[in-house]
Amino acid sequence: MATVLSGTLVAQQLATKLQKRIGLLRQQQVIPTLATIIVGNDKASLLYANRQQQTASNLGINYQLITLSQQTTEQQLLQVIQELNQDVIVDAILIQTPLPAAINPQVIRQQVAPIKDVEGQSAESIGRLWNGQSGNLPTTAVAIMKLLHFYQIAVSKKHVVIVGRSSIVGKPLAALLLRENATVTIAHSYTDNLASLTRQADILVVAIGKANFITAKYVHPGCIVIDVGTNRDATGKIVGDVAFQQVQAVAQMITPVPGGIGPLTVMSLLEQVVMIAERREKQHGR
Amino acid sequence: MATVLSGTLVAQQLATKLQKRIGLLRQQQVIPTLATIIVGNDKASLLYANRQQQTASNLGINYQLITLSQQTTEQQLLQVIQELNQDVIVDAILIQTPLPAAINPQVIRQQVAPIKDVEGQSAESIGRLWNGQSGNLPTTAVAIMKLLHFYQIAVSKKHVVIVGRSSIVGKPLAALLLRENATVTIAHSYTDNLASLTRQADILVVAIGKANFITAKYVHPGCIVIDVGTNRDATGKIVGDVAFQQVQAVAQMITPVPGGIGPLTVMSLLEQVVMIAERREKQHGR
Repeated sequence: MATVLSGTLVAQQLATKLQKRIGLLRQQQVIPTLATIIVGNDKASLLYANRQQQTASNLGINYQLITLSQQTTEQQLLQVIQELNQDVIVDAILIQTPLPAAINPQVIRQQVAPIKDVEGQSAESIGRLWNGQSGNLPTTAVAIMKLLHFYQIAVSKKHVVIVGRSSIVGKPLAALLLRENATVTIAHSYTDNLASLTRQADILVVAIGKANFITAKYVHPGCIVIDVGTNRDATGKIVGDVAFQQVQAVAQMITPVPGGIGPLTVMSLLEQVVMIAERREKQHGR
Repeated sequence: MATVLSGTLVAQQLATKLQKRIGLLRQQQVIPTLATIIVGNDKASLLYANRQQQTASNLGINYQLITLSQQTTEQQLLQVIQELNQDVIVDAILIQTPLPAAINPQVIRQQVAPIKDVEGQSAESIGRLWNGQSGNLPTTAVAIMKLLHFYQIAVSKKHVVIVGRSSIVGKPLAALLLRENATVTIAHSYTDNLASLTRQADILVVAIGKANFITAKYVHPGCIVIDVGTNRDATGKIVGDVAFQQVQAVAQMITPVPGGIGPLTVMSLLEQVVMIAERREKQHGR
């Protein structure tokens, strides 16, 4: 029976550290501030924003939630971003997806000032990540690395198989793992014989957004399984991309959903807000 | 016996296309211009620059070779780059490595104006590559894709194993392969059981700079082997990272060294010079 790796526990530890750093910033009259933009009324986006807001508030981070109507044009959204880019109060800007079909998220994300790009999605941020330079990092990928570090799971020389090649998880995670000398395979919807690949993984990371997709046959005994998915199953219950019960019977360690990467991603996001505030304070004072 | 994939042949075909594009630019009074900087007197760098110069000259591309003494400081080199950034005649800037130990190539490369960054090594260029946006691309990675396209080797659903994780070959090549739906594994000096991984490859790309390192035991029959290395063996002969004779007996297809990725990289570099000149001509006129 696999050990369950609690993301909640790691998030709590991180929260304690963050409170101290926020206290120091407050002594300099700086209150870290995150602005989240939601366009339309996607329920999951609003729920996620609520969770950000509560956690931010508990930590002492200011939070601006900007909700725009479904009819918002790309031009109008760009204007809101420009204003937030200029706003000296705002440290970090998050643009929640999904956006309305008429708006191209790729175009939009490139308009966020790289220093305020808390999702680490600007070309500048992504390039710095692959070049090994400091910068804002995609927070889900960071959360996964934090979990591994917390549980002292070294990735050097390990074969990590990542299922999913998104710009917020799969690809940036590969960069972070390579920095720590993991051998990395990136698999995805076009991958042939997926199970024969995933069964070779020392560490298996799944981020594909398909409820309970990874069953026991995909997992080698001794594998460490990281489940990044958050889906609802037919009964409305929140489940991951991994069929938890059957995989837990095979794997060595596994993250649950909920209580795994999710809460740690929110905390990693807020840590990045604090990092940006610290960087701005150091460089410019305020 | 494996089919030999000739990079020289692909380079010749590309040269013919480039000559037409250069002709069109010349009608607009634009002569594409590459400036290459060499610091110190590394023999291999000078030889490579000579090859660039000859090929550029044959095509009708202007070529400036700037050689600086081994004693050049980072500050002095930065000043040369600033001047080239400003120079309206210069389309593209290439900084040859190795640089003297006192100069950090990472710092230097970030000072090249992204539009003139012909090696695609600026954070902006690397980020755009991973984000799927247009921009300057690392030319060796491009050369590999060109060879695969020329020989109509589809990578979709194929498992490509890349040995070597450099910023000019391994990592950017992974990005280009993922765009075309390959499953990608990145292995390197820390990889355990390398042969058991490489033997799974449908396509094996080797870029590690170790003469004749990949022997027959690393290769599965039917594999397509791309050798990116250029080394000298004990007798002074130019050889690749792959032990050509024994691997040719096993593989389905293989690139030779010399005559493989090398000449195609030079031509891909010059194509990127032409692309930059075309982009500048389109955007600004001159």
